[in-house]
Amino acid sequence: MSKETGESATYKTTAKKQLRFKESVEINRASSQQDDSFVGSFEHQKLLLAAAYVSDAQFSRNIPFETSPHAVRLYYLYNHWMTQAVTYFFIILNLALAVFEDPAVYALPVWATSIVEAACLLAFTGRLVHFAKVTPKDRFWKDRKNICVVVAILAVLVDLIIYGTMHTLGHSGVRYSRILRPIFLVNFAESRQIRRAFRSIRNTLPEIMYVFLLFMFTVLMFSLLGMKLFKKRNLVTIDGKQYFKDYLDALFDMYVLVTTANSPDVMMPAYDINGWYSIFFLVYIIINTYIFMSVFLAVVYNNYRKQLKNEIKKLVYMKRHKMTQAFHILKVEEGTKSVIKNSHWRELMNVVAPDISCSHRELLLRILDEEQKGYMVKESFLRMADLLNIKVITMKSRIHSLELWIPRIYNSSGSLLIRRIVQHKGFVYCFDVIIFINAIFIGMEDEYVLISYVEWGFLALYITEILLKLYTYDPRTFFARTQFWNWFDTLVIIAALLATVVNATLKSLSQYNSQEVLDIVFILRVLRLIRIVDSIQRFRVIINTLLNIMPTMLTFAGLLFVVYYVFAIFGMEVFKDRIHFYGPNSTDPAAKYCGSTALNNSVFANLGYCKNNFNNIISSFIVLVELTVVNQWHVITIGFEMVTHPASRIYFFVFHIVVVILIINIFIAFILEAFFVEYSLDRSEVETTIEKKIQEQGVGIPEEELTKGSLVEDMETSENDLANTDEPGIRPRGLKFRIASKRYKTVDALLQHMFESELDPEDDGPPLDTILEMSDEDIYISNPTFDSAA
Amino acid sequence: MSKETGESATYKTTAKKQLRFKESVEINRASSQQDDSFVGSFEHQKLLLAAAYVSDAQFSRNIPFETSPHAVRLYYLYNHWMTQAVTYFFIILNLALAVFEDPAVYALPVWATSIVEAACLLAFTGRLVHFAKVTPKDRFWKDRKNICVVVAILAVLVDLIIYGTMHTLGHSGVRYSRILRPIFLVNFAESRQIRRAFRSIRNTLPEIMYVFLLFMFTVLMFSLLGMKLFKKRNLVTIDGKQYFKDYLDALFDMYVLVTTANSPDVMMPAYDINGWYSIFFLVYIIINTYIFMSVFLAVVYNNYRKQLKNEIKKLVYMKRHKMTQAFHILKVEEGTKSVIKNSHWRELMNVVAPDISCSHRELLLRILDEEQKGYMVKESFLRMADLLNIKVITMKSRIHSLELWIPRIYNSSGSLLIRRIVQHKGFVYCFDVIIFINAIFIGMEDEYVLISYVEWGFLALYITEILLKLYTYDPRTFFARTQFWNWFDTLVIIAALLATVVNATLKSLSQYNSQEVLDIVFILRVLRLIRIVDSIQRFRVIINTLLNIMPTMLTFAGLLFVVYYVFAIFGMEVFKDRIHFYGPNSTDPAAKYCGSTALNNSVFANLGYCKNNFNNIISSFIVLVELTVVNQWHVITIGFEMVTHPASRIYFFVFHIVVVILIINIFIAFILEAFFVEYSLDRSEVETTIEKKIQEQGVGIPEEELTKGSLVEDMETSENDLANTDEPGIRPRGLKFRIASKRYKTVDALLQHMFESELDPEDDGPPLDTILEMSDEDIYISNPTFDSAA
Repeated sequence: MSKETGESATYKTTAKKQLRFKESVEINRASSQQDDSFVGSFEHQKLLLAAAYVSDAQFSRNIPFETSPHAVRLYYLYNHWMTQAVTYFFIILNLALAVFEDPAVYALPVWATSIVEAACLLAFTGRLVHFAKVTPKDRFWKDRKNICVVVAILAVLVDLIIYGTMHTLGHSGVRYSRILRPIFLVNFAESRQIRRAFRSIRNTLPEIMYVFLLFMFTVLMFSLLGMKLFKKRNLVTIDGKQYFKDYLDALFDMYVLVTTANSPDVMMPAYDINGWYSIFFLVYIIINTYIFMSVFLAVVYNNYRKQLKNEIKKLVYMKRHKMTQAFHILKVEEGTKSVIKNSHWRELMNVVAPDISCSHRELLLRILDEEQKGYMVKESFLRMADLLNIKVITMKSRIHSLELWIPRIYNSSGSLLIRRIVQHKGFVYCFDVIIFINAIFIGMEDEYVLISYVEWGFLALYITEILLKLYTYDPRTFFARTQFWNWFDTLVIIAALLATVVNATLKSLSQYNSQEVLDIVFILRVLRLIRIVDSIQRFRVIINTLLNIMPTMLTFAGLLFVVYYVFAIFGMEVFKDRIHFYGPNSTDPAAKYCGSTALNNSVFANLGYCKNNFNNIISSFIVLVELTVVNQWHVITIGFEMVTHPASRIYFFVFHIVVVILIINIFIAFILEAFFVEYSLDRSEVETTIEKKIQEQGVGIPEEELTKGSLVEDMETSENDLANTDEPGIRPRGLKFRIASKRYKTVDALLQHMFESELDPEDDGPPLDTILEMSDEDIYISNPTFDSAA
Repeated sequence: MSKETGESATYKTTAKKQLRFKESVEINRASSQQDDSFVGSFEHQKLLLAAAYVSDAQFSRNIPFETSPHAVRLYYLYNHWMTQAVTYFFIILNLALAVFEDPAVYALPVWATSIVEAACLLAFTGRLVHFAKVTPKDRFWKDRKNICVVVAILAVLVDLIIYGTMHTLGHSGVRYSRILRPIFLVNFAESRQIRRAFRSIRNTLPEIMYVFLLFMFTVLMFSLLGMKLFKKRNLVTIDGKQYFKDYLDALFDMYVLVTTANSPDVMMPAYDINGWYSIFFLVYIIINTYIFMSVFLAVVYNNYRKQLKNEIKKLVYMKRHKMTQAFHILKVEEGTKSVIKNSHWRELMNVVAPDISCSHRELLLRILDEEQKGYMVKESFLRMADLLNIKVITMKSRIHSLELWIPRIYNSSGSLLIRRIVQHKGFVYCFDVIIFINAIFIGMEDEYVLISYVEWGFLALYITEILLKLYTYDPRTFFARTQFWNWFDTLVIIAALLATVVNATLKSLSQYNSQEVLDIVFILRVLRLIRIVDSIQRFRVIINTLLNIMPTMLTFAGLLFVVYYVFAIFGMEVFKDRIHFYGPNSTDPAAKYCGSTALNNSVFANLGYCKNNFNNIISSFIVLVELTVVNQWHVITIGFEMVTHPASRIYFFVFHIVVVILIINIFIAFILEAFFVEYSLDRSEVETTIEKKIQEQGVGIPEEELTKGSLVEDMETSENDLANTDEPGIRPRGLKFRIASKRYKTVDALLQHMFESELDPEDDGPPLDTILEMSDEDIYISNPTFDSAA
């Protein structure tokens, strides 16, 4: 928080230390410039190679690459964000083709989609060739990922040609290869996380299999019992259907009961006849729904953990391995020791992290070369990848631009009063209350039309709030990259203002309220209410944890997308155009039974599920979501069975087992583990080192300031701040560092720290081949080797 | 497994060692008898006191008791299984009164139930007075449990008198105090486990509260959004109900959607109008159903773990404390050391574990007094409680009774052949196949009537199997206490035989198939199929884990019972006789709307839910189970709202939050933890010591025999086997020990071992007061003290 008013005493005590630190930064900057002449003679190729290793270590990339200068340059290109973005563009384009192909949301002619698909294949081939040039030949063909992609490209190509020919000749065909498209998403090297999730599932399979068999055994037994008990009693369900009439029927009902989707309906006819029959169903629910489903979760969770630990071990060993290689490239002999000179290290940093601030770099150097000998030893150098991953935030007591332009007015007593009011806690509380009142008004709006005019008042209040804050805090600080809530507030309110104005204009021009614009205005107004949550400390902690695990949750979204896509493509081939939706107010008699007489008077049609069909990729996805949520999945299953074939049940069973029993449980396991790690982890050893160093240099942020400045944390991500120091007329500003909160850390990073604390710092791990072996493919086989090595 | 055929060579190699061990057992037995004369002079009172401490340590009882001889004797009586059984009898009787009181399943006059209740109160008072005599006065009144019970007794008494008076005067009243009955179940000292589960919940509350508030905030926001978006569009659901018509209505729909019970029905009208509206529901489901529900589980799980660790720490410290006290009572000075003489130890064992076998006792002594000095030091003595908890199984190569009676025939080559066939693996597989075929026949039975006669053949086969096994293995071995599957098989088959015969008799006498008897026969036949599961190793592992955690699952059953009971009593007072069930085939027009015109054409009545009512305690329990399973809970909620008042929703909401969000999550957390412990734990250090000793003495079971004898493990729980050694004419039999498999261990014990391995063996823990403080009441406050001590 800006402290220009100058009351703080803590600043003065550390002023001297800061000055010294800044001087030394200056000196080092100078010396680093001198070194440049020397570095000119240093082989640039070597530097690039070392930087590639360091980058790989920093971002946990595990791509084996050739070390020839040409290959290294290609490798840089391969990892460049542009080439990656292009690859992703084509992957998404390829997947998006499903929207335009028959059955299409927006139909395009076959030649158009075929050309686009051919272009995608070309791009994939190019990417693969690029990868082949980077990686050693023998490794390339050993990697199943590459073989997968090659086979998929060929298969799609063949399918495309056959289908194209048939289409030209007027025959219709099935584009089987469409189901292979997610392979490109999964198998290009960038989707490491999704692949890991798939490995997790694969490794869990054997163990979950046995639980599943046992579970199916109980379902089979209870179905047999149920059939025998109820068949002879001629019970009928409320729909008039016969009860447990044959074995497959009983089995279906009992399996659905596990998912609770037909509870208590399946029990009621029997229960009505005799109270004791309820015991049969209660025992079944306890055993299968509660115990077995929990056991599934337990098995998945245990395996997930085991798996995770192995993966993290591998990552950590790979990181060390790469850092060691980088060290061997850059090392020079200093006496008896191999060391890296600080000048070389600075060169390296310019390649690895060019956008890091100069002062931040010097801070890191202080940590790596603790005794300021001008070089660093291997042990220090190995920590560099971790140091780079820790977000150190450079904080500045920035001076408000207004103070520069109109210092007299800005520092007048009236202005000071305003600024003090805005900085006061009460200001935040006051606006929390306003938001709360606003919420009540929104709720009552419909009853009292006048209230809608009050909305203008609230909008004005919110705008005033933002303007006042911009007056008090420097705009650059207020809109710093990490100020999520400030951005959120401002954007929502500007959008709301615009939409309200548009709506008012429309109304005055045409006496017409656009429902869509009104909806948008309304959503924006409700979104504004969310901010109240951030004012409460306990809520913020939970939200931070959730935001922290968001990236990995997106991995699961990717995983789920792949599975959905495959099921959707398959489902469309099997179920397309079997069920039709005739629009919400259709008078067509066929609308009653979704255009299929088989559905006449079925539960599916009566509940109005006609729009739950596989007639295009988007409907398919929505049906699959409904199946994931489970409730009424049996109605959907029976509906599609009625219009096709009893065997279609298999599709829905498989989907349930794969998505609900496997993937959702892995998702829950992930959240459990993430919370467990968040709860149990303190700062890592590396972070403590940095923090200590920051404090030693006297450039830390006192604790009390940190806690005070919760609304507008006066922080900024790294930028070349020292470059501005020389601007004339500006008095020296407090330059401060602090470590970014855990909010910006991934679970992966947390886990790596967790494992590293168990690991001997001297332990370089097993040789590279062993590390690679314990990788992706068979984690179980390599496990014993590994345990002995650890 | 019996090895009379004598091929095994392993026996002979260890024969000498065994002989030596047996001799020493004999000598020790003799010396122990000599000691008796000496022990006579040893103060019996002290012994009883020490034994009380050891027993408490063994069974983790934490009741503070006076040490006066009189109090100790009362304490023995207090812990006697008879007095405990009587207490439980009255607790159950008291709870069961709900079956007979209005609204009753079987109505009894008020005077009858009142007299029974008064008797129960008398019993509870007696138990409490007994406890007061045992425990120190100041502790008694400090203990909230006791105060709870006293208050509850008084409240019930007052209520009983008022209700009785009013009833005599002809007024009707409400028996409010019935809701207090579970207090007796929870607060008597024996229900330690249920209390612990309640504590777990209480300690989880603050943290889950914040997550819940955040969760409710999102529900409120989405409801507001939903109402605004859909209200103006005049959508109607499939039942013709208006859509999101007011805020409370929207809130209810959205809350139900979290439980997925109205998915996708609540989405369909909006989705039919515009595909984009589905996004609103999908986002809501992802955030609330998936993320928030997982977070609830994560928070509960984390707290459960933290809580568990504290509880276990306390138990371990208490155990050590008690064992130390026992040691100080029994110790004598031997040189400079305080020790316990073996003779005193044997006396102690006679009191603590009178039914332990003599050889088992000597085995323990060998472990405690390793160097056979005739006394044991404190460190050894402390391990005694753990040693007693480890089930050591004495195994004997028992001689078949037939071999004694008709040795010639039994050992003839024909007999030997039969016995070898039965012992062969193929015999087991053969019967697995028969069971499998039987299962298929059962499934087809109805189509081909002749098949039902085949059943007699199967029955004969099963009986033959059992007879053959009894011929091969000694009956006493076959029906040993741990032979669960043998017992299971035999009982099921005898019952099936009896029932089939009864049915056949009935049929031949009256040409009438009793459906009930047929059902029982059928259930027994299906039960028989279960045995196939035990033949497969991987299934057995899972089942063993489940059996292992069964006792703690029963704790949860107790917890759930208490919560259900309270809700059921409350529900009966509010909802009784509002909804009526007219029998399955009633022609009464009121049956259509459950006897309440308000329900005419309601979903509740149309689905035939009339029997889901609160008209007696059993129906209430079944309704509550249905609410726990969640599906259709909104239908039940709306049904009861229609016949009472909108505020009745609160009852169902509270039930959902308490049972589904809290208790079910704690149950899942428990299963997760149990599996985690089962997976990660090896044998404890104490077990290893015993095992080593058993091997040293040469009385272990060779590994290969253990794995071979999976069907009939020739084991037997401890009994005074050596007493039979002297029987004339019997050749010396192999006497062997082995440690019972993990199957017989509780999760509690596993956890204690887990924690003890982290604990310094010298650590006696904090002083008693600190241990007691960190107990039940406020685990959080005592936490820091504890961490510093650990």
